Amino acid sequence: MAERNYNVDNLKQLQKEINKMNPVDIADKLEVLPEKSVAIWIKLLNKDLLADTFTELRPDNKDRVLKILSEESIKDLVKELDEDELVDTLQELPANMVKKLMTSHIDRDRREIVNELLGYPEESVGSIMTVNFLSVKSSETPAAAMKKVMESDLDAEKLEQIWVTNDSLVLTGFVFIADLIRNKKATIESITQQITAAVSPTDDQEVVAKLSIKYDLGEVPVIDSEGRLIGIVPAEDVIDVVHEELQEDFANITGISDQGESYIDESSFTIAKNRTTWLVICLITATMTGFIIQRYESLLAQAVALTAYIPMLMDSGGNAGSQSSTTIMTQMFSGNLSAKDFFKVIFKEIRVGTLVSLVLVAINFLRILIVDNVNIAVNLTVSLTLFLTIVISNIIGGLLPLLADKLHIDPTVMAGPLITTIVDTGVLLIYFEVASVLLGI
Amino acid sequence: MAERNYNVDNLKQLQKEINKMNPVDIADKLEVLPEKSVAIWIKLLNKDLLADTFTELRPDNKDRVLKILSEESIKDLVKELDEDELVDTLQELPANMVKKLMTSHIDRDRREIVNELLGYPEESVGSIMTVNFLSVKSSETPAAAMKKVMESDLDAEKLEQIWVTNDSLVLTGFVFIADLIRNKKATIESITQQITAAVSPTDDQEVVAKLSIKYDLGEVPVIDSEGRLIGIVPAEDVIDVVHEELQEDFANITGISDQGESYIDESSFTIAKNRTTWLVICLITATMTGFIIQRYESLLAQAVALTAYIPMLMDSGGNAGSQSSTTIMTQMFSGNLSAKDFFKVIFKEIRVGTLVSLVLVAINFLRILIVDNVNIAVNLTVSLTLFLTIVISNIIGGLLPLLADKLHIDPTVMAGPLITTIVDTGVLLIYFEVASVLLGI
Repeated sequence: MAERNYNVDNLKQLQKEINKMNPVDIADKLEVLPEKSVAIWIKLLNKDLLADTFTELRPDNKDRVLKILSEESIKDLVKELDEDELVDTLQELPANMVKKLMTSHIDRDRREIVNELLGYPEESVGSIMTVNFLSVKSSETPAAAMKKVMESDLDAEKLEQIWVTNDSLVLTGFVFIADLIRNKKATIESITQQITAAVSPTDDQEVVAKLSIKYDLGEVPVIDSEGRLIGIVPAEDVIDVVHEELQEDFANITGISDQGESYIDESSFTIAKNRTTWLVICLITATMTGFIIQRYESLLAQAVALTAYIPMLMDSGGNAGSQSSTTIMTQMFSGNLSAKDFFKVIFKEIRVGTLVSLVLVAINFLRILIVDNVNIAVNLTVSLTLFLTIVISNIIGGLLPLLADKLHIDPTVMAGPLITTIVDTGVLLIYFEVASVLLGI
Repeated sequence: MAERNYNVDNLKQLQKEINKMNPVDIADKLEVLPEKSVAIWIKLLNKDLLADTFTELRPDNKDRVLKILSEESIKDLVKELDEDELVDTLQELPANMVKKLMTSHIDRDRREIVNELLGYPEESVGSIMTVNFLSVKSSETPAAAMKKVMESDLDAEKLEQIWVTNDSLVLTGFVFIADLIRNKKATIESITQQITAAVSPTDDQEVVAKLSIKYDLGEVPVIDSEGRLIGIVPAEDVIDVVHEELQEDFANITGISDQGESYIDESSFTIAKNRTTWLVICLITATMTGFIIQRYESLLAQAVALTAYIPMLMDSGGNAGSQSSTTIMTQMFSGNLSAKDFFKVIFKEIRVGTLVSLVLVAINFLRILIVDNVNIAVNLTVSLTLFLTIVISNIIGGLLPLLADKLHIDPTVMAGPLITTIVDTGVLLIYFEVASVLLGI
């Protein structure tokens, strides 16, 4: 489409086509179209579709679009955006554009709400909640509530649940419109659904993710310290948060300090920077393994065959440790485990580790016996080390995330590259000590 | 509560208390209460709360509860359960119980639907969708639709969106009840919202997760091959699916073949079994590293100092490989990358790898120079190997998930322990080849 010449006919056709598209797809398209076509597309979009598309754009493209739009169109766009979308936008734009929007396009009432939302820290509930909801008092009648719905200018998707408060505006529950219709003569109180969980605007967004998973929640209400309803986290946003939080965990596990939204658009320098910190930490702690090998150099010189098994032992320990740390970590995320299960985890990992290592040791013993030309003492040294390695790695892997939680560190950070390094050091120490005893060196 | 004696007074109190609780919390409690108390609790629960609680129970406890309940109560319970919940239950119960429920408690109409749902494979959309939804034809009036809502005996939460079809029952969109109320004189067509995405019942549930994340969907409609609406995946279930799929990815990455629901309740034997397969595979592939070391034994004997750097080189390579594989994998999950980006990923990883390794090599070179008592040729050998290791590990880590996708293997399986083993083998080969050139051995 980028190349064709525009005339009245095909413009009309284009307008029809793009106004049927999904805002996410339009945004994807706008990211790759040449400047000139972008200008045409955004002028052809309906007001509300333009707003929906705008919120999906990458920061630099938001800025670009705002520069293309007339003052009048910017005013329309700002009017279409919900307060929380407006806040997201403001946080992404350059300072001069923010100032322009705040002073000339956002009216006073909204400016107050926007300023308040801007005050919540990144990844807090306050930063993702919407303030567009409808609430009724439990003392009102269903008919009065219905009237509020009919007069409301909120999008219909914001009216799936009507929130119920007492006379002091403290949240007491919610009603579905369907129940308002079906129970016209009842009291609001009798059709009010109980709230399973509510969150505070200063909570981390992870709290929302964990509650929704545990209790199968759709929308999650946000209340202030007095219990008054101040916002809602809609189901679609909960899905995003669950996804984001788990992606963050993936990044932590492999020691990536900040995984940006888009790999392709992020600069190589930024990606490299986010990966380097942990690699350097691991590089430096790995010198421990070097020291240990240097210390036992004379032992290794006398039994060169031992060297061949070092990588296998280190890999097995690292893999076993990652397995248990990942298991414990995901169980903690789902709310099934916490620091108080310390001893349960130790005993479980000892049992699991013993079972796993018996299998590995048996296979490995036979393999060395059949394939490798080494004496039985070396084989026994490797076997005993492998056994201890697996059991100890399982225990360390299981306990580190619990310990991290106790120390208020994100467990996934602990479940990451750190485990490999700790396990490696332990493996080598065990190996050489077992060797010096069994080989009598 | 488990210990106290029950009398009429405290039974009434207990009944009041537990009927205010959330089904998830009641289920948690029932899992730990003694048999006798469980029997009392389930008799005190309101019918609908009992049904909601029942669906949250672990399989063995579902069986236990059904054995406690009277025939009459089972009938009530079955009536309260939605078809999809009934199917989940049937899949978890022992065969004799399934037979009993199917023949004497599930009436004919429902048995047909249940049998159809039972036919969908595990983790398919069909196995998680609900068949309880309300639809209207676009030719009907808002008033007629409202009448359907009023007469519907569906739970109000199933009536947030009313689905719209044409006269052949092909899905064309949906309307919100709020819009029906606010537009009594309009046509259904004029207030119908467009469907962004629909799925097939045979699709893997991961499709739902990915679509919801990409398009910010709440409910996702399920259609047959003719486009007729046959079910819905509600937002709460989408959240569960996103969570489950990402947890599965975590398990894959560390080579756990099946991560059960609950770590604490799962037997050590089962956990060990699920962890062992990949550890054995890695153990066996790790013998490659052993062969390489054995082959270069004479070289190592002449330059014993080289051994000390093997763990550091292997760890750095493994960590760098995991970083890029995890990044690519999560980007693929979010729909931002696919196999067609093969070359983009190669070039990006070469650039990122070069930047990262320059930093690591510089730090490591200085450390060896200052701390270790080795000659400059050894230091250069280690430095050059480290550089090549990081760059190559980045490329391999980046390409394996894309390759897996091309081969229709779950990319996370490839991003797992396999990478460490492949990288380790490569690292050692590079190390010894570089050494024999630079050290002239």
